[in-house]
Amino acid sequence: MRVGIGQINAHVGAIEANTTRIVEIIEEAKAAGCDLIVFPELAVCGYSPYDLFWRDGFIDACQQAIARIRDASSGVGVIVGGIDTRSRHDPANRDNTSSLSDGASIDLFNRAYFFEDGQLLGTVDKQHLPAYDIYREKRYFTPGEGTAVHDFGGMTLGINICEDLWIDDGPTDLQASLGAEWIINLSASPYYLRKPGIRTKLAARRTKENGVGLIYVNLVGGQDEVVFDGGSFAFDSKGRQLFSAPRFREGLYVIDLAHSAPQRTSHPSEIEDIREALELGIRDYVGKNGFERVLIGLSGGIDSAVVAALASEALGSDNVRCIYMPTEFSSTESGEDAKATAERLGVSFQIVDVSDPLESLRTILPKRPSGLVDENLQPRLRGTILMALANQDNALVLCPGNKSEIAMGYNTLYGDTVGALAPIADLYKHQVIALAKSYGDLIPTRVLTKPPSAELRPHQRDDDDLPAYEILDPLLKRIVEGNASKARLLEDGVDAALLDDIFRRLRQNEYKRAQLPPGIKISPKSFGNGRWFPLTNGYLD
Amino acid sequence: MRVGIGQINAHVGAIEANTTRIVEIIEEAKAAGCDLIVFPELAVCGYSPYDLFWRDGFIDACQQAIARIRDASSGVGVIVGGIDTRSRHDPANRDNTSSLSDGASIDLFNRAYFFEDGQLLGTVDKQHLPAYDIYREKRYFTPGEGTAVHDFGGMTLGINICEDLWIDDGPTDLQASLGAEWIINLSASPYYLRKPGIRTKLAARRTKENGVGLIYVNLVGGQDEVVFDGGSFAFDSKGRQLFSAPRFREGLYVIDLAHSAPQRTSHPSEIEDIREALELGIRDYVGKNGFERVLIGLSGGIDSAVVAALASEALGSDNVRCIYMPTEFSSTESGEDAKATAERLGVSFQIVDVSDPLESLRTILPKRPSGLVDENLQPRLRGTILMALANQDNALVLCPGNKSEIAMGYNTLYGDTVGALAPIADLYKHQVIALAKSYGDLIPTRVLTKPPSAELRPHQRDDDDLPAYEILDPLLKRIVEGNASKARLLEDGVDAALLDDIFRRLRQNEYKRAQLPPGIKISPKSFGNGRWFPLTNGYLD
Repeated sequence: MRVGIGQINAHVGAIEANTTRIVEIIEEAKAAGCDLIVFPELAVCGYSPYDLFWRDGFIDACQQAIARIRDASSGVGVIVGGIDTRSRHDPANRDNTSSLSDGASIDLFNRAYFFEDGQLLGTVDKQHLPAYDIYREKRYFTPGEGTAVHDFGGMTLGINICEDLWIDDGPTDLQASLGAEWIINLSASPYYLRKPGIRTKLAARRTKENGVGLIYVNLVGGQDEVVFDGGSFAFDSKGRQLFSAPRFREGLYVIDLAHSAPQRTSHPSEIEDIREALELGIRDYVGKNGFERVLIGLSGGIDSAVVAALASEALGSDNVRCIYMPTEFSSTESGEDAKATAERLGVSFQIVDVSDPLESLRTILPKRPSGLVDENLQPRLRGTILMALANQDNALVLCPGNKSEIAMGYNTLYGDTVGALAPIADLYKHQVIALAKSYGDLIPTRVLTKPPSAELRPHQRDDDDLPAYEILDPLLKRIVEGNASKARLLEDGVDAALLDDIFRRLRQNEYKRAQLPPGIKISPKSFGNGRWFPLTNGYLD
Repeated sequence: MRVGIGQINAHVGAIEANTTRIVEIIEEAKAAGCDLIVFPELAVCGYSPYDLFWRDGFIDACQQAIARIRDASSGVGVIVGGIDTRSRHDPANRDNTSSLSDGASIDLFNRAYFFEDGQLLGTVDKQHLPAYDIYREKRYFTPGEGTAVHDFGGMTLGINICEDLWIDDGPTDLQASLGAEWIINLSASPYYLRKPGIRTKLAARRTKENGVGLIYVNLVGGQDEVVFDGGSFAFDSKGRQLFSAPRFREGLYVIDLAHSAPQRTSHPSEIEDIREALELGIRDYVGKNGFERVLIGLSGGIDSAVVAALASEALGSDNVRCIYMPTEFSSTESGEDAKATAERLGVSFQIVDVSDPLESLRTILPKRPSGLVDENLQPRLRGTILMALANQDNALVLCPGNKSEIAMGYNTLYGDTVGALAPIADLYKHQVIALAKSYGDLIPTRVLTKPPSAELRPHQRDDDDLPAYEILDPLLKRIVEGNASKARLLEDGVDAALLDDIFRRLRQNEYKRAQLPPGIKISPKSFGNGRWFPLTNGYLD
């Protein structure tokens, strides 16, 4: 059997455009002699529409899309992710108008449709609905029930959706016990570092323990804070990889199940992987929102240099405009480094000196600002200038904040935090440094080697205000990603005063993080919509 | 039986302080001769800790709190909301580190504990876990199962939790069929307009149809974007109200079940109700976060005047500082009205003229700003000034945005949107006007009667840029709260060009709303965490 993998870049909510693309790929797959073509989870509406599911007409639009795909299935099998409903006993006298408009009167299913020759061969609903991290599926969906397999082209197929593959003694095992020879899994699995290896390890185990083959079809593309990395693959029933599709790229990929030989599973270099993920995240955020250009405030430091390098790869250097905005605290070196970075990246570069409005602001304040108050004025003026230039240019501002700073609140809200997207918000400082190194000569050496400084007061250095990144980053990872408590870290011998400082600052800056632009997720736990903390919070540990 | 209702204002995460308060109220209740004292849902940890549930040690801390409460139950029955766990088959080889740290290896229950004399009489777990609107309970909790009733003081009690009361043919009905005479419902039910009437209507129906009495105990207090309004009550088995506790106030309220006569159900005036909710929301946000003072940019217009009036009632006029920041577009009337508002409210008032830094900013921009670019510079400078003054003063900035403006993006991100809290973000403009009127002489008449203007260009009026509020507000309500599609509104005869404009602006300003300070919810659907829309969104209807 020849199978086409329709690894599409769906645009959330753009149901008609997604469907047109799906139908095009079906035609391509037919031309390539495919017997079966498989698309990802929720391919018609993208992942995830969130509360769009509850908009009047949204479900109808998805079902019309499914009908178009059914009609396009002449002469080929098509498996595609969509949604379907079943009306529930309507609690008309329930009086809770809020929950009613939130879709409480219907059961909605995250569904795989299987068509051939314009006929429905079957449907399978997702059973295990994730609600952790960024997932909200229990908000919208009712779990599917039962187990089914489908005969097609002389084979027995077990179709399931994303999370259902991850469950031990779950849908895959039941389908295997009903005679499935190939599991077809439709996924919308977002990227984070080392996720590809986690997926293939699971695939090897799941196929071997059940003696089934697996075709895993993943979505690709950036959607706000997540990036779907594609990398669809096939495994044989002995746990050997037969095929892997390119990552971070849309396309139709074809595999002949009968004539595929096991191949070595290869894993990408971590930094290359992050780079591709962030570039796709930037490109899709900018493009899908109807923009072409971005604006970056270059400081001469490493964070903004890395954001400029990423943007320039993602959008082309012509679409990146960099602004250097010195004050009296800016060193000559910073100006030189900002300019050299822009030159090497081939992006436009401008200097806007903020000394005059800064001094004017200081003068009109009833009490002349000093200390932190004065330090905050500067980035806020820069943010105002960036937003004005972006307005004039129809461009989006990219925010240069990294995860270490964002965790500790080492930034100025409405200042260096402004922007439409924060590409490196989920990279600890040491990852930013590694990423900078990967750009080789494109980023001047001094940007990497000089001690980081916000240059908001004379002789300032980050390590005056923050623990050294070598100490801070691993602790943040344990606290933010591992949920380690202060008590546990104390037991492990971490300094108490250091922990008090980190825990206090983490907690105190929740309100700031709640007002940041979306960051692109590259870790199991990024700040953003996968991490829900109350702003008002009396818990100290 | 004499029952104490412990209508407490729990501080999310402050487990020890909450528990101390609960134990104090138990002592008060004993002194008042109560046989039984009931506290709200999740009383020990507040509602809602969200991902704090997953912090190492959080569950232990909640269970230690429950043990303290058990020990305090000598000589009295105590029913209190907490949490408990049951470890699940640990999918150790599941390889999904993200979901593991998100608590996937335990079952967590939203539990009511029933103690007497230091002994556990029983527990009841919440069965129906809301996941719509602001609720995320399916993210954390496993549904309880089974039905239980408890004998106490010669009565049979059916204990259940919040949502479980709202379900037709649900836990309440089952408990009644097992002989419950009184239903005890522990709630953490957030306020929105007309919710009190919805609750008592439900209570009347539920008690009458099952022939049971009901004691409904609700949380009180502000927590970020929601306000719990208290207003606990009791109904007899004929659907008649026996008792109602004050709303928006913490306290122990005592009812003698045997000697209570039916009373008339009274409903608060809507505007008074909103006012009390917003005042409590402001007071608790400021106080629970360790602040005393707020800062407001007064424009001379109605929105900031109302915010100043609310803050002055909530915090005392000594704790409110108002700043008027004119530019060349500010009218004499605006300055007079701002000053008069501050004087009548008795709050401090200062003028900071932003003309100089504004002109300086215009000058340093590579291209002199005009149109919207220039209009955005002004509020951003004002935001910068407010934040500087707030830093100097250890105060929080209150943001004056209303729901109509926020819906349409008629505001400047990082400008008039800055702040720690947006008290009137869930009020349509017509509700702001009604609220302003309720302050009588405290707000000068001209603030209410002059045509609204942002004063960012000569002779600007809101209705040049926006549909009239009389037309806009009802449409927004249908779209935002009712999820009405463009197609449906067209069918109802609404103008197509008007709808195109509203739908386009609603969608285009999702990114702005994602960066706003929390607003206080007073409607079934506020912008904020109860409404999840993708920023990148190709859905047009």
